[in-house]
Amino acid sequence: MHEECGVFGIWSPVKRAVPRDVYLGLYALQHRGQESCGIAVSCDGVFHHLKGDGLVGEVFDRPGLDRLGEGNIAVGHVRYSTTGGKNHNNIQPIVISHMKGNMALAHNGNLVNARSLRSQHELCGGIFHGTADTETIVYTIVSERLKVTATAEAVFRTMQQLQGAYSCTLMTATKLIAFRDPNGFRPLCYGKTADGAWVVSSESCALDAVGAKLIRDIDPGEIIVFGKEGVTSDRRLCGQQRSLCVFEYIYFARPDSIIEGVPVHQSRLRAGHFLAKENPVAADVVIGVPDSGIDAALGYSQESGIPYGVGFLKNKYIGRSFIAPSQDMRETAVRIKLNVIAETVRDKRVVLIDDSIVRGTTSERIVRLLREAGAKEVHMRISSPPFRYPCFFGTDVDSRENLIACRLNSVEEIAKEIGADSLAYLSVDAAHRLAGDTGCTFCDGCFTGRYPIDIPEEQGKSKFEQPIQEE
Amino acid sequence: MHEECGVFGIWSPVKRAVPRDVYLGLYALQHRGQESCGIAVSCDGVFHHLKGDGLVGEVFDRPGLDRLGEGNIAVGHVRYSTTGGKNHNNIQPIVISHMKGNMALAHNGNLVNARSLRSQHELCGGIFHGTADTETIVYTIVSERLKVTATAEAVFRTMQQLQGAYSCTLMTATKLIAFRDPNGFRPLCYGKTADGAWVVSSESCALDAVGAKLIRDIDPGEIIVFGKEGVTSDRRLCGQQRSLCVFEYIYFARPDSIIEGVPVHQSRLRAGHFLAKENPVAADVVIGVPDSGIDAALGYSQESGIPYGVGFLKNKYIGRSFIAPSQDMRETAVRIKLNVIAETVRDKRVVLIDDSIVRGTTSERIVRLLREAGAKEVHMRISSPPFRYPCFFGTDVDSRENLIACRLNSVEEIAKEIGADSLAYLSVDAAHRLAGDTGCTFCDGCFTGRYPIDIPEEQGKSKFEQPIQEE
Amino acid sequence: MHEECGVFGIWSPVKRAVPRDVYLGLYALQHRGQESCGIAVSCDGVFHHLKGDGLVGEVFDRPGLDRLGEGNIAVGHVRYSTTGGKNHNNIQPIVISHMKGNMALAHNGNLVNARSLRSQHELCGGIFHGTADTETIVYTIVSERLKVTATAEAVFRTMQQLQGAYSCTLMTATKLIAFRDPNGFRPLCYGKTADGAWVVSSESCALDAVGAKLIRDIDPGEIIVFGKEGVTSDRRLCGQQRSLCVFEYIYFARPDSIIEGVPVHQSRLRAGHFLAKENPVAADVVIGVPDSGIDAALGYSQESGIPYGVGFLKNKYIGRSFIAPSQDMRETAVRIKLNVIAETVRDKRVVLIDDSIVRGTTSERIVRLLREAGAKEVHMRISSPPFRYPCFFGTDVDSRENLIACRLNSVEEIAKEIGADSLAYLSVDAAHRLAGDTGCTFCDGCFTGRYPIDIPEEQGKSKFEQPIQEE
Amino acid sequence: MHEECGVFGIWSPVKRAVPRDVYLGLYALQHRGQESCGIAVSCDGVFHHLKGDGLVGEVFDRPGLDRLGEGNIAVGHVRYSTTGGKNHNNIQPIVISHMKGNMALAHNGNLVNARSLRSQHELCGGIFHGTADTETIVYTIVSERLKVTATAEAVFRTMQQLQGAYSCTLMTATKLIAFRDPNGFRPLCYGKTADGAWVVSSESCALDAVGAKLIRDIDPGEIIVFGKEGVTSDRRLCGQQRSLCVFEYIYFARPDSIIEGVPVHQSRLRAGHFLAKENPVAADVVIGVPDSGIDAALGYSQESGIPYGVGFLKNKYIGRSFIAPSQDMRETAVRIKLNVIAETVRDKRVVLIDDSIVRGTTSERIVRLLREAGAKEVHMRISSPPFRYPCFFGTDVDSRENLIACRLNSVEEIAKEIGADSLAYLSVDAAHRLAGDTGCTFCDGCFTGRYPIDIPEEQGKSKFEQPIQEE
Repeated sequence: MHEECGVFGIWSPVKRAVPRDVYLGLYALQHRGQESCGIAVSCDGVFHHLKGDGLVGEVFDRPGLDRLGEGNIAVGHVRYSTTGGKNHNNIQPIVISHMKGNMALAHNGNLVNARSLRSQHELCGGIFHGTADTETIVYTIVSERLKVTATAEAVFRTMQQLQGAYSCTLMTATKLIAFRDPNGFRPLCYGKTADGAWVVSSESCALDAVGAKLIRDIDPGEIIVFGKEGVTSDRRLCGQQRSLCVFEYIYFARPDSIIEGVPVHQSRLRAGHFLAKENPVAADVVIGVPDSGIDAALGYSQESGIPYGVGFLKNKYIGRSFIAPSQDMRETAVRIKLNVIAETVRDKRVVLIDDSIVRGTTSERIVRLLREAGAKEVHMRISSPPFRYPCFFGTDVDSRENLIACRLNSVEEIAKEIGADSLAYLSVDAAHRLAGDTGCTFCDGCFTGRYPIDIPEEQGKSKFEQPIQEE
Repeated sequence: MHEECGVFGIWSPVKRAVPRDVYLGLYALQHRGQESCGIAVSCDGVFHHLKGDGLVGEVFDRPGLDRLGEGNIAVGHVRYSTTGGKNHNNIQPIVISHMKGNMALAHNGNLVNARSLRSQHELCGGIFHGTADTETIVYTIVSERLKVTATAEAVFRTMQQLQGAYSCTLMTATKLIAFRDPNGFRPLCYGKTADGAWVVSSESCALDAVGAKLIRDIDPGEIIVFGKEGVTSDRRLCGQQRSLCVFEYIYFARPDSIIEGVPVHQSRLRAGHFLAKENPVAADVVIGVPDSGIDAALGYSQESGIPYGVGFLKNKYIGRSFIAPSQDMRETAVRIKLNVIAETVRDKRVVLIDDSIVRGTTSERIVRLLREAGAKEVHMRISSPPFRYPCFFGTDVDSRENLIACRLNSVEEIAKEIGADSLAYLSVDAAHRLAGDTGCTFCDGCFTGRYPIDIPEEQGKSKFEQPIQEE
Repeated sequence: MHEECGVFGIWSPVKRAVPRDVYLGLYALQHRGQESCGIAVSCDGVFHHLKGDGLVGEVFDRPGLDRLGEGNIAVGHVRYSTTGGKNHNNIQPIVISHMKGNMALAHNGNLVNARSLRSQHELCGGIFHGTADTETIVYTIVSERLKVTATAEAVFRTMQQLQGAYSCTLMTATKLIAFRDPNGFRPLCYGKTADGAWVVSSESCALDAVGAKLIRDIDPGEIIVFGKEGVTSDRRLCGQQRSLCVFEYIYFARPDSIIEGVPVHQSRLRAGHFLAKENPVAADVVIGVPDSGIDAALGYSQESGIPYGVGFLKNKYIGRSFIAPSQDMRETAVRIKLNVIAETVRDKRVVLIDDSIVRGTTSERIVRLLREAGAKEVHMRISSPPFRYPCFFGTDVDSRENLIACRLNSVEEIAKEIGADSLAYLSVDAAHRLAGDTGCTFCDGCFTGRYPIDIPEEQGKSKFEQPIQEE
Repeated sequence: MHEECGVFGIWSPVKRAVPRDVYLGLYALQHRGQESCGIAVSCDGVFHHLKGDGLVGEVFDRPGLDRLGEGNIAVGHVRYSTTGGKNHNNIQPIVISHMKGNMALAHNGNLVNARSLRSQHELCGGIFHGTADTETIVYTIVSERLKVTATAEAVFRTMQQLQGAYSCTLMTATKLIAFRDPNGFRPLCYGKTADGAWVVSSESCALDAVGAKLIRDIDPGEIIVFGKEGVTSDRRLCGQQRSLCVFEYIYFARPDSIIEGVPVHQSRLRAGHFLAKENPVAADVVIGVPDSGIDAALGYSQESGIPYGVGFLKNKYIGRSFIAPSQDMRETAVRIKLNVIAETVRDKRVVLIDDSIVRGTTSERIVRLLREAGAKEVHMRISSPPFRYPCFFGTDVDSRENLIACRLNSVEEIAKEIGADSLAYLSVDAAHRLAGDTGCTFCDGCFTGRYPIDIPEEQGKSKFEQPIQEE
């Protein structure tokens, strides 16, 4: 399960090394995408950009950052690719020039009508370098821009045509524009630094990283323009039912981020509380699978009164360069990534908290590790409902035939397959209460199959990968 | 003085590792561009490509080539960038998708009406990712493609709109199309391998590299389509006065290539003959500046009867990673790149042949090295006329204020500045006879300022680098 | 404060890809040294090795591991250099050949009489390629080896000459030998895999990584030989007072390792318990500085009854490639590495647990971050005594003038400088009880200045870096 | 056939960036070894060094050179490894410390009694990190240094023990010492820069590279010491019969170098003259195989009166990163490296000059390429005698079973196998006259099997690669 993207943008009243701010911001958003990243900067309307495959620390070295230089405005992006594959042209921000000037766009989300929109542009002779939705959004904005006098108005007209999830930062020669789809599937917020620069980010943790104070989330349907004339908000498309992806709280977002006024860490503690209330069990210790199960485990402990313990040591040096051992060593080598602290679980009844079960193989191994370390009982609790349906709004989930919750018919069967003494998931109802009484409503399509907006027939992520025969 | 590009393409009746052929072909064309390169392949209509900054041997490693896999058709490109700068989006081939399918284009040359063509597409909402002419050509082809049923016809319609130099290889899902501007500024030829694959290349040396036999040059104005139905030629735009860039013979092309039926090596020997006839001098030895002055030196020796000698040793390990010494060591460190073989010139009257003088600083140093090695007299002979005017067709020359032939008023003054006892250039008339009696005619705009086609007012390479203010 | 090294070794009854095991083991020991690493393997007595600067994942790629091939025996090392600097010849294992064969040695620790031993060998014409103690140990072993018939006996004779800390793995053509100084300053243990291979490691977490079961610690003064004849132990030098470095429990070792039968995680919980008993304070939440303060914080919470909370989010992507912001951004950019989860501390009295205070600057920043996030009070508790004296046994501590506990006269002054409402350290007495009732005794020289063995006058780490004038 | 090494050294009266000079010098000596290289510098007696696998331009980047800093003395080395394999410890200069100080040694050549010398040191407890002869030389010098008061005297005593080829540069804290074996197998010369620095190099082309004037060759058996007291020469071991490797003239050395007063280029022209006199043939053109056959081809043309022509284009971009095509493309892909200029040879009787034939496969391909290009006859002339015996003095030749001159019984058979119409080698007698009347005498062991010094039984290059069993 992967988030697809994180976006960032900054508008500074004075020219300075704004790519450095974006660099710090992208480091803070790295958890939202590790495949590629990029930064584009506008210096008096001249655009420079640097993009590449890899982590922020791999793509941007000192000479690269230095070449980006100074400017007033910059946008950045981290990406986990699902649509489009390893095409360099898909790395964001998409930087283009058009009739009226330059434009750079960074996008988090997924459209459900990208195909038909793209066809419209192709019918007019449009050419596409990549396969990502982002290029379609840019095309639409540029098309509308030719009919109106301001880019912000072109964005408004574009949003009326887009269906799906999009939280975007857009840079023109003089303005930074942030906009978010009317459902608000993906988070987007903004803040301000002490020296007067406006900062937009997928998550508030990246505002912290550059010393900006969070002002508020950009509302679903809102367009905010940052420029010399100040900040303007266009709310004509606001007011629909919110459908924030509930996995932002459960898994994607960093615990130190605040979404819709709710600290993500708090929502995870709360998930633990709900889990403990809904699915109590007699046990001696509560442990979490690092990193994302830790918070809910602490919440479970608080609610249940069962002591919290540190059950695992996660090797922080394992990265992409790690060469997995050959098949015959694999079984033992699980421990290289996650080793049990036997002291914590030996001869105990253990409550094990994780954020989700996808295929079940990892859960099965972890339960086995615990038993080998001496755990008497292992009761697994999952801080999300079982997901059984595809996401069309920017999350990459495994195919249905691989999902254990689709393969098996009951929670009992799943418990048996992973070897747990008991298993329980968070209820969908509880998931809807993760933001407390803020009134925030969620998309729960991946649990229920009921989506906030219609999914067009055309929808499928495979179009551009398929052979296209001509003549 | 730099050539901008080399192009390559292959169509194979059977699916195989055609990217390997392109790889070999680009190695043979590397002298035409060392800044970036790329290969695109079509496997049953699915396109894959790999592009990057650097030499062919740097961009393509074994895993990279392996990922490109197999296919029927592939195109490749080596690039020396003048327009567009270090924008990754400018690296060719340009690979795009459109209404009717996919397309990949590799282009050598330079348009003179790119700006107005680009504006036309922008007026229709077109967006441009890079700043190279190539993207404009692709846009035009796609626009026309929507109106006609075949890409080749779209190319024909496009060529009616393009002004300037273009030798191109174009890949669609099923066809390889090669086309060349009606003036034939840049070379383009094709051949066939023993196993029936058709190969198109900027120069025939790359055909040799993949074991293909040269069939003939693609004629100025000709469009050739390679596909399952065989090879078809569209000659509707042929018949104009040819204007091959004379520097292809003098400097750019590899001596083992054959252009318009004339071996490049032969044309350089001939330049030496002409030089000896037009500008004889009493001397003891003829030497050439490696690598490009060697052939003309041998020709001068043959015509004059003055013995040919090896005057210099060129260090073949000096590449881009070489760290030039600091200012105070620079004077002595010229020798690291080019060392005189003193034995050859000591106490002798030397005829020194080079292909051109640009700023004069290198020539001055070389003459000094010869004198320090004991040469009694140094008579410099240049195997091209002095160039005094800009090139609009794909060659990157220095700015006029730097050109020694523009700065100084006479050949005598130049001779004095570089320290030669005498100096002579090839006459423009002789340059026109470098292809012998083949009837090949040349563009001599850089010598005379008279260009084969009108240069629009708009022409200027700087547009896309300048700030574009919006709103 | 840095640990200098981790060592690993394996002896397999059958020939197989033992370098892969070492690779996994070094990944698990990476926390003990991040500057360089190496693996040496013996295949029927032929040695191959690969060493380099960087992390295990940087030095060893797949082709490198493949080149190491298979074998029966292998040793490995991770290193944080203090003595010797960035000399490639100092990277371990040291691999040499001598009169009787080959030898590879990996060493964790620091000798106090390296200088005089080295001089003895130099007096006999010995030459040294590097500046690390390890080469001196090898020299001594080889010298003794010439006098006796077995390497193990040469090791015994060598140990009688060595003074200081050394936990070593030594590979000969047919044997793996592990030995540890009689004080047992640094840990060393061994175990066995299911398929009968013997494994030696600085910490048991690396045994887990290769699927080996921990048998026991190698005793201080013990020499263990693994070979075809089985396992033999030489205990002639055992029996001295143990002086394990107490920082192995407090900071260096991984919490999932077991040293002297005591889980490191448990000893850290216990440090928290002691801290809470010795220095109670009225507060609302206990938080730890990640990663090493977490365990003690949990212990403090357990003992005090004050709830445990997650106070910080540590950015796991910040590595050596991170480019620190310029001076003016630095203040805000602390948060990129460690961001407060404000929810946890807002309006609360906070107990903040860290493992040590070195210069005090980091502690000061962290306290400030907490206050900015709304903490009402910040009570800092340190899970080790203040260190005020140099370590001669393998730990790299800052110079005395930088140590805040040396600079300032009282805990109150330190509390004031870092801005804490109160501050307390673990008592030296409590430190001695971290291993519980196992009878394990410790070196507390860095707290008390009283060392278990005499420190020779000569001791100083700078010798080999100083100019050596000759003639 | 490969040369093993090139050495360089500099002594400057003032402290400056001497590593830069060595860097330039090694670039000029790169043809003598491409596998690894290194530079060591002494700054007031403190040594720093940087070594690595690869070309000079790969091992030394700007930060690396900067870290080496300034100094008075520096030595450098380029290496093609034959003995020792890919062991990092074999990369030179060997930098060590000993009883009396530091030392760095760079060595070109090969000892024939390395094994017994090494054993002597091992018997005293000596340990060896690598497998190269150089470490043995260092050990011997250090051993002797303990008995005498000056390093130069230790070198003298060492040379009395060494048997074989060695041209060395040795750096101590205050002196640069150059010494050459009494047979003078490998070249070594010295010169002086305008600013008073003394420079020692394997070849004079590297003196040119740093702006030094060649003074003279260092005589066989001579020891020269450069220091504050000036330059001193120890000639006690001079006076033996010289045995310069004749392949230095024929193949190894750069044509712009001067050895024993004879320009290498001149000796190669002379080889061409001898070839033409000894083996005349009626032909239309003489061509050489680039790069090393060019000079002799020109000499053959001068002597015979047959016109000289350019027969091949060598692709200068093919380097180690080139990925050779798969087997089925290999035949055609020879041309990627060496393409015939058909114009030169079509319908002609061709004399083809190369410097040697090793296995014959390359010669066979080249002859075939010429015939395919239309050559009527191909007469091959080799500018060296056939080599049939191993070299023990620093040249790496193929194994006897691979050498075509060993496999086949007559020149006629060889001619037939490579497909030439005729074939002739330079006579051994002519080879002895390549230096003209300078009185220089040569080692011709590889042609005759008669070596200037006895080859010990023990000699064999494989010792240290073989398994060494112990205990």
